Amino acid sequence: MGEPISKEACQKKLNGINDALYAIGGKWKIKIIIAISEGYSRFNEIQRTLGISAKVLSMELKDLELNGFIQRNIDPGPPVVIDYTTTQYSNSLDQVLAALSNWGEQHREKIRAERS
Amino acid sequence: MGEPISKEACQKKLNGINDALYAIGGKWKIKIIIAISEGYSRFNEIQRTLGISAKVLSMELKDLELNGFIQRNIDPGPPVVIDYTTTQYSNSLDQVLAALSNWGEQHREKIRAERS
Repeated sequence: MGEPISKEACQKKLNGINDALYAIGGKWKIKIIIAISEGYSRFNEIQRTLGISAKVLSMELKDLELNGFIQRNIDPGPPVVIDYTTTQYSNSLDQVLAALSNWGEQHREKIRAERS
Repeated sequence: MGEPISKEACQKKLNGINDALYAIGGKWKIKIIIAISEGYSRFNEIQRTLGISAKVLSMELKDLELNGFIQRNIDPGPPVVIDYTTTQYSNSLDQVLAALSNWGEQHREKIRAERS
């Protein structure tokens, strides 16, 4: 796809895509980051708004925290309140999300045009 | 994330992202498109290079064909030979893949810097 490039440059591009898919690929990660950035900060809120199982959400939140996209905040209370916020680093995804968003809008137009 | 925007613009962005994730999200779709664009054109080749089950690959290929990213070609032979190629439309993903790739490279640098 795209312009011809050297084998090394191509491999570097592919490695980048693989790294990106590893960190934010899969069914849920981008959706969770967006939900938290929209203000769904509590575990139950995130779970409800996305319709994700508690077990999977729990694993995904740990991954996202390890990768530095979100932060787990503990207010010792009482009552103890745990919530999640996005980090500064999650802003580094802005370009990826913008590209996805633009492409998604165009794709929707295409599908709509084909159907009519 | 990013600059403040109107609620409508935000919703449009989110819809775009959702549409994009629906079409190319998940564990395999982008990897399959890249593998085919690299010249892995036969079912068994794609399966082997990605380490994906035949059942899942078969479903993913159908989805990708329906969405217009790949084409299934039948050479009636004999022997009958079926292979897959990417379409012109798959080039529309170039910007998304470039954004993913750039971000992935930067993310790798960050992880590396944190470890050392």
